[in-house]
Amino acid sequence: MSTTDFSEMFSEDTRNFFRSPVRDIFKRVDLNKIYSFAGGYPSADTFPLDSFGEIMQRVLEREGASAFQYGATQGVTKLREAISRRYGVSVANVQITSSSQQGIDVCTRILIDPGDVILSFNPTYLGALQSFKSYRADVVGVSAKNNTEDFEQEWRKTIEKCMADGKRIKFLYAVADFQNPSGETISLEQRKMLVKLAAEYDFIIVEDAPYRELRYEGCDIATLYSLAPDRVVHLGSFSKIMAPGFRLGWIIANEQILDRIYVCKQSLDLCPPVFDQFVAEEFLSSGALDANLKKSVELYRSKRDLMIKTLKEEMPEKVTWTHPEGGLFLFLTLPEGFDSVKFYDKSLDAGVAYVAGQFFHTDGIGGKNTMRLNFSFMSHERIVEGIKLLGKLLNEVL
Amino acid sequence: MSTTDFSEMFSEDTRNFFRSPVRDIFKRVDLNKIYSFAGGYPSADTFPLDSFGEIMQRVLEREGASAFQYGATQGVTKLREAISRRYGVSVANVQITSSSQQGIDVCTRILIDPGDVILSFNPTYLGALQSFKSYRADVVGVSAKNNTEDFEQEWRKTIEKCMADGKRIKFLYAVADFQNPSGETISLEQRKMLVKLAAEYDFIIVEDAPYRELRYEGCDIATLYSLAPDRVVHLGSFSKIMAPGFRLGWIIANEQILDRIYVCKQSLDLCPPVFDQFVAEEFLSSGALDANLKKSVELYRSKRDLMIKTLKEEMPEKVTWTHPEGGLFLFLTLPEGFDSVKFYDKSLDAGVAYVAGQFFHTDGIGGKNTMRLNFSFMSHERIVEGIKLLGKLLNEVL
Repeated sequence: MSTTDFSEMFSEDTRNFFRSPVRDIFKRVDLNKIYSFAGGYPSADTFPLDSFGEIMQRVLEREGASAFQYGATQGVTKLREAISRRYGVSVANVQITSSSQQGIDVCTRILIDPGDVILSFNPTYLGALQSFKSYRADVVGVSAKNNTEDFEQEWRKTIEKCMADGKRIKFLYAVADFQNPSGETISLEQRKMLVKLAAEYDFIIVEDAPYRELRYEGCDIATLYSLAPDRVVHLGSFSKIMAPGFRLGWIIANEQILDRIYVCKQSLDLCPPVFDQFVAEEFLSSGALDANLKKSVELYRSKRDLMIKTLKEEMPEKVTWTHPEGGLFLFLTLPEGFDSVKFYDKSLDAGVAYVAGQFFHTDGIGGKNTMRLNFSFMSHERIVEGIKLLGKLLNEVL
Repeated sequence: MSTTDFSEMFSEDTRNFFRSPVRDIFKRVDLNKIYSFAGGYPSADTFPLDSFGEIMQRVLEREGASAFQYGATQGVTKLREAISRRYGVSVANVQITSSSQQGIDVCTRILIDPGDVILSFNPTYLGALQSFKSYRADVVGVSAKNNTEDFEQEWRKTIEKCMADGKRIKFLYAVADFQNPSGETISLEQRKMLVKLAAEYDFIIVEDAPYRELRYEGCDIATLYSLAPDRVVHLGSFSKIMAPGFRLGWIIANEQILDRIYVCKQSLDLCPPVFDQFVAEEFLSSGALDANLKKSVELYRSKRDLMIKTLKEEMPEKVTWTHPEGGLFLFLTLPEGFDSVKFYDKSLDAGVAYVAGQFFHTDGIGGKNTMRLNFSFMSHERIVEGIKLLGKLLNEVL
């Protein structure tokens, strides 16, 4: 152990760092020994190991040493081209990232000075809040529950309040499809409203879309990016459509913003992992990605349905939940007064992990009576067993 | 192209971003068509493709799906253990990074507030300067040429001046072995002096050691870390002992500092690439790394010797160069008045790339009459041809 104390040496930023409670759960327990509804882990059954092995061999033979040399900071050209074709954008608008978490981080880095406002749906993705707060942004949340005509009213009121307080709004952060943690989706009308507000009040929208292609019912809704390509930075991820272990994502944005991100990325890590990018390109271009995605969607749909069915059977009457059209999560609301952070130790001792809703709240205190449940990671059988156990524990206290 | 201008939206940090001139050279030209002494690229001949292929198959079979799932933020345990054994440190003191550039970046992030001082040998690694300046550090350089007894005097004077100016020195950055760009090595006496000064004036040392195991003559010198494990953060890299395309490095440091880095890394990119970490572990633990390193050292020694021999034959009399005991670079000094930035376009037009020494200077203006030459990347034949051509061009102007 260190005998020297450096606590006075750390930067101001670090005083705003906070640990992910999700990751700390994983440090405490063996994921395979408990019922884990906690993480955002894809099912290991969706990783096509044979296909990965064949593709790696092909990449080795075809690319040779160039797959192991330093690569371009923007990412491997072939992969940028493949993404450009898949999503109908110009190659010049595509930057590869070393994970979509890095996408969130670099956007925050290039845009935020301490005190600048980031508007966010509330609750929202914990990893985004970690990054935002580490840059000392003022994260202003708007309740995501508001699904009515006064959606515009609510956002406009929040924006006007920020401006009256003399604050600078830099961007709005949105997981438009199957939000984390609520699982809810922003409607087309609401998306149009958001880009209108962005233009009117001159801010950027960062659209985080890791779950977009995991849709189990209903129809695709236009991305925020497609509604305002000049003003929206779109973040994509290979973690949920391929595998998270590759740590690859992408950014689609206008060239002015990408140029700043390029220079930022030079000093962050020079370039994304090169061999992995060639593997992702081959996985995508060969059609293996779409074939695999189809199977993943079917698997996750059946898991979602099974979880909802089991919740209906096992949960106390006062508990409600969202019905997500896609993604990896649903969100439970328990009676007022219930404290899911307090309840967590009891639950984990009994063998069930979840993430308390409070951790996703921009103010760090709201949503005490909520919890996020993941339905992608565990097997059908263990989903049923885990929900039964959670239901039993909740029935004892509610 | 964007029609909206966001230039007023960017953070203060971005005003201090600067592009790497090295990477911009690579954007302009095809590396295989010119004589490139510019980058810090290893030779592609040192990438054991067959071995990588076999190891990947073994990892696929042995680790299965877990090689593609999210991993621990600190890195895969097996790889941390392998590094811990190799370098004789505790596993708790090892953090895996997504490139050693990321190691530089996170150290700067957790330690530097705008205006804080980073002490540095001058000239120094450009990628470190990029990161330091992006956090608005005050980088104070000390000439690396000073190899005499007044080494201590020089550093002490610099430190005292910073303190008299009321500045806070956070850390000293040093590439102790085969410095980039000079190729020179800091002696044991000088290392002892540096850690003494660090303790006396209470600052940290960040020891960047990407080339340490590429030694072609002489004996290993104790790392700064081994002289003061509490106060030194040691950065390692797989880029030069395995291949840069994996983007993997490591940090060895005390637990208090690693804990901040852990939380920082959660918001940066969650975890390093997982499959790649298992491949690096197997490459290291199977002995393939050491066998390959031995071959790389022989190859690079012969290239260094050939370059020095050719320089002697081809350079104008007034040109001198360093004799590095290891690493990838040697450093040329041309007569006063020569401007290697100005000369660069002429040189590139003729087909020879180098990096002007000025770019490595902490003040961005010193070292006009210097240039860095890489001897690892090109074949023996092309090294001779390239130096002949550069000699011819220099003879025309000197």
